Amino acid sequence: MELGLIGLGRMGGNMRERIRRAGHTVLGYDRNAGLADVHSLKDLVDALAAPRVVWLMVPAGEATRSTIAELAGLLSPGDVVVDGGNSRWTDDETHAAMLAERGIGFVDCGVSGGVWGLENGYALMYGGEAAHVARVQPVFDALKPPGEFGAVHAGRVGAGHFAKMVHNGIEYAMMQAFAEGWELLEAAGPVTDVREVFRSWQQGTVIRSWLLDLAVRALEEDEHLTALRGYAQDSGEGRWTVEAAIEHAVPLPAITASLFARFSSRQDDSPQMKMIAALRNQFGGHAVTSAAPESGGAGSGS
Amino acid sequence: MELGLIGLGRMGGNMRERIRRAGHTVLGYDRNAGLADVHSLKDLVDALAAPRVVWLMVPAGEATRSTIAELAGLLSPGDVVVDGGNSRWTDDETHAAMLAERGIGFVDCGVSGGVWGLENGYALMYGGEAAHVARVQPVFDALKPPGEFGAVHAGRVGAGHFAKMVHNGIEYAMMQAFAEGWELLEAAGPVTDVREVFRSWQQGTVIRSWLLDLAVRALEEDEHLTALRGYAQDSGEGRWTVEAAIEHAVPLPAITASLFARFSSRQDDSPQMKMIAALRNQFGGHAVTSAAPESGGAGSGS
Amino acid sequence: MELGLIGLGRMGGNMRERIRRAGHTVLGYDRNAGLADVHSLKDLVDALAAPRVVWLMVPAGEATRSTIAELAGLLSPGDVVVDGGNSRWTDDETHAAMLAERGIGFVDCGVSGGVWGLENGYALMYGGEAAHVARVQPVFDALKPPGEFGAVHAGRVGAGHFAKMVHNGIEYAMMQAFAEGWELLEAAGPVTDVREVFRSWQQGTVIRSWLLDLAVRALEEDEHLTALRGYAQDSGEGRWTVEAAIEHAVPLPAITASLFARFSSRQDDSPQMKMIAALRNQFGGHAVTSAAPESGGAGSGS
Amino acid sequence: MELGLIGLGRMGGNMRERIRRAGHTVLGYDRNAGLADVHSLKDLVDALAAPRVVWLMVPAGEATRSTIAELAGLLSPGDVVVDGGNSRWTDDETHAAMLAERGIGFVDCGVSGGVWGLENGYALMYGGEAAHVARVQPVFDALKPPGEFGAVHAGRVGAGHFAKMVHNGIEYAMMQAFAEGWELLEAAGPVTDVREVFRSWQQGTVIRSWLLDLAVRALEEDEHLTALRGYAQDSGEGRWTVEAAIEHAVPLPAITASLFARFSSRQDDSPQMKMIAALRNQFGGHAVTSAAPESGGAGSGS
Repeated sequence: MELGLIGLGRMGGNMRERIRRAGHTVLGYDRNAGLADVHSLKDLVDALAAPRVVWLMVPAGEATRSTIAELAGLLSPGDVVVDGGNSRWTDDETHAAMLAERGIGFVDCGVSGGVWGLENGYALMYGGEAAHVARVQPVFDALKPPGEFGAVHAGRVGAGHFAKMVHNGIEYAMMQAFAEGWELLEAAGPVTDVREVFRSWQQGTVIRSWLLDLAVRALEEDEHLTALRGYAQDSGEGRWTVEAAIEHAVPLPAITASLFARFSSRQDDSPQMKMIAALRNQFGGHAVTSAAPESGGAGSGS
Repeated sequence: MELGLIGLGRMGGNMRERIRRAGHTVLGYDRNAGLADVHSLKDLVDALAAPRVVWLMVPAGEATRSTIAELAGLLSPGDVVVDGGNSRWTDDETHAAMLAERGIGFVDCGVSGGVWGLENGYALMYGGEAAHVARVQPVFDALKPPGEFGAVHAGRVGAGHFAKMVHNGIEYAMMQAFAEGWELLEAAGPVTDVREVFRSWQQGTVIRSWLLDLAVRALEEDEHLTALRGYAQDSGEGRWTVEAAIEHAVPLPAITASLFARFSSRQDDSPQMKMIAALRNQFGGHAVTSAAPESGGAGSGS
Repeated sequence: MELGLIGLGRMGGNMRERIRRAGHTVLGYDRNAGLADVHSLKDLVDALAAPRVVWLMVPAGEATRSTIAELAGLLSPGDVVVDGGNSRWTDDETHAAMLAERGIGFVDCGVSGGVWGLENGYALMYGGEAAHVARVQPVFDALKPPGEFGAVHAGRVGAGHFAKMVHNGIEYAMMQAFAEGWELLEAAGPVTDVREVFRSWQQGTVIRSWLLDLAVRALEEDEHLTALRGYAQDSGEGRWTVEAAIEHAVPLPAITASLFARFSSRQDDSPQMKMIAALRNQFGGHAVTSAAPESGGAGSGS
Repeated sequence: MELGLIGLGRMGGNMRERIRRAGHTVLGYDRNAGLADVHSLKDLVDALAAPRVVWLMVPAGEATRSTIAELAGLLSPGDVVVDGGNSRWTDDETHAAMLAERGIGFVDCGVSGGVWGLENGYALMYGGEAAHVARVQPVFDALKPPGEFGAVHAGRVGAGHFAKMVHNGIEYAMMQAFAEGWELLEAAGPVTDVREVFRSWQQGTVIRSWLLDLAVRALEEDEHLTALRGYAQDSGEGRWTVEAAIEHAVPLPAITASLFARFSSRQDDSPQMKMIAALRNQFGGHAVTSAAPESGGAGSGS
């Protein structure tokens, strides 16, 4: 089939390649003309035969919103738009409604797989009406990994991004689990070769997983991760996961702890810990500006 | 080779079977005479040719301690004792020293694999002197999964149990990650078939793992886990992991949150939440014994 | 001065009384006619001389929104509306803008004090333009506790509710601190009279506080809180505090843990702990439906 | 009465002064001869009339242990030793037993009050046999704050340090509560004068407390705490609180989060966050050594 693909960055570019390898025709647009097959959204729409399927891989938020608004004016009834970016699931209903007014279908699709997706396939979670999903099915089949799993029609519009959001929340806590365990092994105890222990865990253990395999790869490149700073971004889904949980009174202690650990990692100095230091100074009579470890005499504060 | 195996419960019994399938001779002892090949520790030691290897699979703590003490009096210089149970790693040095006084070697070995180990192999993490480990190597080779990984000589005495302890700490947080994600999907949002989403995640995602496969199995048996109570034991290693982290000032927020969630799950009623309720009553003027949800009027406390 | 007061529940009723004791005239309206001085918002507005000050003490959300919308149609340029309820601070700007279109001023005011406020005074945090605040100042002076502190003009519109929201977030974690400490003292250790320890802490300690005094009062009524269920509501501000923190990448581990503890306290059974139990069953071979504590044999899972 | 006081640092020196002001005789010993009244433990014991009371204010752990061992050889049956330092409560029973063999009594006493204790009095929590406590009562009366509260006989030997330990655990979470709230107010929202908000909270609020008063003092000295580093020590009791909770399966999420926040504050770079960064690099294809914030394109990992 024929697909219009908007956004040809690292993810979009690899996805175009995988879809083409499956024998489909992909027409790509990107603001960076060097990557693009056509030079405007209008050219893209004109070049595709109706009924069209147009897939977005652009940054969540304003870029996705404005692109969908522009497409709404260019596409025809019967066309289908797929948002494959990392949009917040609550945006999907707005986008679907805007397009539905003009008879255009909408499918939201969470995509997982990173740089490995080109060769191994991308995990896909999508939401929308069955008829709209059916139109995109050949592309889903091209992108997904071979085998029984890796793609799911998760429910109505928004369900794809919601499922991907929770996937990422789980991922945060799993990454944190390995990170905490690794730090403890490196810091303490009788284990002399932490990397060898991680390597051994890849078979037979309860914690064997793709993330463990990636940890081993990272340790093989840099045994003590000395070349890295302990600085971790977060990309939205973790936050939204916690917000969805709060809205529904679901306790998420491990996922939230993982998110907060990333927040802390990005602070050069912690304002809240300044306040702790200030309070200790006030009741303990510690010198106000000193940050040196103290000797911890009897009866001192805490 | 010939192995004495003490403790023939679910784990020990399966391990005996796997070692035998590899062509070794296993003489088993258990307090339950129906499971045992010999009828006392003394019979076991007498029946094995020196230099002997004796492997314990008995409960951590007193049972392990007293068994090792008794073996110290029965074994000969050059024999090796393996503690394959879930002992706290700090016990290992004591046991090793007690045996070393009589020229008996000691290896601690953390074993992972549960009921799947018989067919798939057990992941093994062991600690001790190279010469002692070498004596046990054929048994390690029989127990471990086929392939490159699944067994590691992690360091000196204690390193095996330490590595297994951290493995289990990581496992706690990974299980908690999936549990939190599943609860959120079931509680909220547009996903209509949570089980199908979990199933799809088994390929192509960042979170694919053996624990995910087990979650899918569990959901296939009971889609909404209605037959289960939200009640989770913990078995020592999680606690020891947090204690080791505290001793070395390593923050473990996700693993600790996972441990505390299990503690809470076992409380019929939460004393600390009684205190929260009592305080809310005191400043808010709520009736003291009522536990009914309130309407949350303007200006009320929190 | 003359004040219109809308909402005469527990909080509003007591506030009317305190304002009257200070010599001001309060005209009250409530949907419950038995509490009210006038029988409609229109009657209230008609009975007050312009320029008016009208203070809302109604539930946050829809009730506040619709009352302000109705007032916008009844009040005159130069009047001022005060929202003294527990509105989310992000609502304040909307309300202020709606009223500003008609020349009506707006002040948001967080009110703390519970049932003790009538006698001791209410802590007030308010936001808005200086000229609008000045109009309400006599009422603020009547409501606040005697002394130097207890009232603050915290900033622009929204600042009052934002400050009150953070106050409540802090309150959550302080309550949780005492609750955790109390549970630990009751559960473990050599302390034989926990209530006496709490009582003693009221002087000379670092943790002396009004919440501690309230805890002592609660323990004096019911030494082991046996008449209470471990069930705690939350009323919005805690959730909003965490959401504001997430939006600004501020880690709030203690406040969030306190919020989640309340969520958990309201679950009859924990779905996430069912999943933990299910996973333990899968790898450990535990009977699927049993929730009985297990004996914890060697080599079992965790 | 007459008291021997060992350890005349900041705490001990001030306590000596307060006890003297109450009309008692204090003979002080310190390794720093410039502070001391006598020049050895033996001189101290010789100079006191039997039956003696000797109070220790020396660092917990080895210093306390060795001092008590030395005293055991110097004191006479009927004497009483008070450990007023920050000993772990589990040490108390050992010390009591060692002294009891020689007919010497033992009282453990947790002391709170910091540099404010000299003027305001010290909060005291003590454990031991009633007869031993009675011997020390005049000193307790001299040290405690005036009024009904501030001192408690908490139970048997160890109860004093256990109660003080839990006090400090509560203190950790209360400090963290204010610290988190302060950081959020400084980071976000419409509040323009955070210090003024803190100041106002000192009356009428639910969170009014001595720690709040201290926070206000700190902000008056340095409005944004710019002179401080976000670096916080911990002094043992917080760790022991969490360990006691783990031993008894009591969940302490807020107190533990507060402890971990201090651990993190002392790390120049976080090893666990290096692992998070490494994993993100592995699946996301990010450049391995770059720590720069990324732009967060569509479909990228998390």
